[in-house]
Amino acid sequence: MGNKYSIINQEKISEILITHKQKIDAKLEEFFHNKISEAGLISLSGRESIEQIRSFTMRGGKRIRPLLVILGYKACGGKNDKAIADAALAVELMESFLLIHDDIIDQDAFRRGGPAMHKAFESKFEGHKTEAAKTVAAHYGISAAIICGDIVSIMGSEALISSDFPLREKLKAVEKFNKVVTSTCYGQMLDLDSEAEQDIRKISAEDVLAIHKMKTAVYTAEGPLHIGALLAGAGEKQLKALSDYAIPLGIAFQIQDDILGMFGDEKKTGKPVGSDLNEGKKTLLILKALEKAGKKERCIILGCLGNRQTSLEQIEDIRKIIVSTGSLEYSKSLAAKFAAECKEAIQKQGLDKDTTSVLAGLADYIVNREK
Amino acid sequence: MGNKYSIINQEKISEILITHKQKIDAKLEEFFHNKISEAGLISLSGRESIEQIRSFTMRGGKRIRPLLVILGYKACGGKNDKAIADAALAVELMESFLLIHDDIIDQDAFRRGGPAMHKAFESKFEGHKTEAAKTVAAHYGISAAIICGDIVSIMGSEALISSDFPLREKLKAVEKFNKVVTSTCYGQMLDLDSEAEQDIRKISAEDVLAIHKMKTAVYTAEGPLHIGALLAGAGEKQLKALSDYAIPLGIAFQIQDDILGMFGDEKKTGKPVGSDLNEGKKTLLILKALEKAGKKERCIILGCLGNRQTSLEQIEDIRKIIVSTGSLEYSKSLAAKFAAECKEAIQKQGLDKDTTSVLAGLADYIVNREK
Repeated sequence: MGNKYSIINQEKISEILITHKQKIDAKLEEFFHNKISEAGLISLSGRESIEQIRSFTMRGGKRIRPLLVILGYKACGGKNDKAIADAALAVELMESFLLIHDDIIDQDAFRRGGPAMHKAFESKFEGHKTEAAKTVAAHYGISAAIICGDIVSIMGSEALISSDFPLREKLKAVEKFNKVVTSTCYGQMLDLDSEAEQDIRKISAEDVLAIHKMKTAVYTAEGPLHIGALLAGAGEKQLKALSDYAIPLGIAFQIQDDILGMFGDEKKTGKPVGSDLNEGKKTLLILKALEKAGKKERCIILGCLGNRQTSLEQIEDIRKIIVSTGSLEYSKSLAAKFAAECKEAIQKQGLDKDTTSVLAGLADYIVNREK
Repeated sequence: MGNKYSIINQEKISEILITHKQKIDAKLEEFFHNKISEAGLISLSGRESIEQIRSFTMRGGKRIRPLLVILGYKACGGKNDKAIADAALAVELMESFLLIHDDIIDQDAFRRGGPAMHKAFESKFEGHKTEAAKTVAAHYGISAAIICGDIVSIMGSEALISSDFPLREKLKAVEKFNKVVTSTCYGQMLDLDSEAEQDIRKISAEDVLAIHKMKTAVYTAEGPLHIGALLAGAGEKQLKALSDYAIPLGIAFQIQDDILGMFGDEKKTGKPVGSDLNEGKKTLLILKALEKAGKKERCIILGCLGNRQTSLEQIEDIRKIIVSTGSLEYSKSLAAKFAAECKEAIQKQGLDKDTTSVLAGLADYIVNREK
């Protein structure tokens, strides 16, 4: 490919992702099957909660986070393919936990082409028509989703503890798992305070990138890679090498996520287009557009930001502004710059060469993906 | 005392509880101090969340759960006093996590003589007067409290992992910690469904005791004792002996909690009197009163159950019904029966004798306490 990096091509990445997803999904199904039997012995309510968690988890995703656990493990010389696939479930379960609670916080009704968890529980009371009954149903939904999030968060830790690795490595992996959740929660708090901040002039592009770093980069990329690496007994130097790759990867991932949220195909992303906008999320796309836009265009954006009644026409208008101000191009080139940084970083260090070429290919995939 | 049990007196139990609380509180302060410094390096929002968790945790409780960790450890021959006190923080942090989420679910505004966590965060927006602004403030409060609960849940696991015990014992303790949280969550789901159940005739005293067993007995008594025991390297037989003591203790604890919730002194309990009633909790006190009451008295109870506008006079009326139907006496004698069962169970097995006499004394304390 005339490339200065050792990198596998995108076709091969797609193949890896498909095979990987099948493997992880089969393991998740087995995991939930056991949990459902276990909970069923205790109570019907418990069983129902696990069934909801199963449905929510199985509906979703490309399983990129578990793939990163496996790649982090292999990059540091790990050879036990079965054990690492078992442990990798932990980060997918962590993802379900964080999304379930996040959807309550963001008041998102849809996720992964289906209802958010609190909406799934709320719908048990669909027959109720009065306002008072609707309030009760909504609170029931939120309550059940808080509890389900708590249950699945513990499942993540359990998947690590029950995996077939030496005690010392396992405990280090659980410690890292805990740190990742905490860091993501701090990011969530920062996010929440930034959304509560009415004055958009007080939010800078740097703030947004700081949240991406704390929230997405750590829990999407660095955390999974480190968990895998620690299970392979990695040392500080290898962890540092993986971080140098992971942090720009995570930021690129989030920028692309924001682009898909505004310009993506709802059928592929599983989330209503423009929902970040409606929730008042100050994405890089929006901040840059506001910075470059004229007075009239600024008014159009600010009128829709955080307004849950935004129409599709208004979203189309805002898309045009994001394009015309160069904000889309800015985000795209920033994502590409971070992807290039990843590829550069991963080649330098003492990691397994076959694995680093997959990681390099994955960086390209992340910024070019459509879902 | 002419007692067939080896049991220390209540005065001694009070002394033990006071010294113990001082020790645990000092350790909690140190733990939070470190966490606040750590979070402060990351973000102001993160730091603020830990400060709220600290205030919520320090305001509360007798630290009975950490005491049970320590007693479980000593009962099984554990000798490292410092390490077990460090590990014991885990269950107090678990308690904060569960209470923070529980208060959102139960829509409780007060806890431990102060605001519930979601109310503490909501009050940041106190100046806002319009209905819309109030809705935003309430949602902000709930969101921040969900995240804080998640953060403190991880802290519990961290306190165990960082304690000075061998890897194998530590991992077993974390596994137990996870199981306790899961079991409590299943209990919460059952509780939630029982509250959503409008037809009170479908809820039996057995259902209520099943919830007590799943929720309170496991996380208040058996879980802490087992975590301590596992850190001492206990075997199946010792764990079983502790369970035989713990399950009746936990049920007695919850029955007494329900009694204090209806008849206790608000200043001592830290919760508004009658709040269980207002939330529609079908406690044993209420169920038994309904069973024995005449038609008119039944109407009075059902009119207040789940009604958040219940007046102090109405609560006083219901108290009288609970007394006159013999329901209070029934709950009291049931709690005493369970306490006797505890004392009987703890003497039989191969546990450290000095510790079992403290455990026996604690059973009496639990059913006689006023807060």
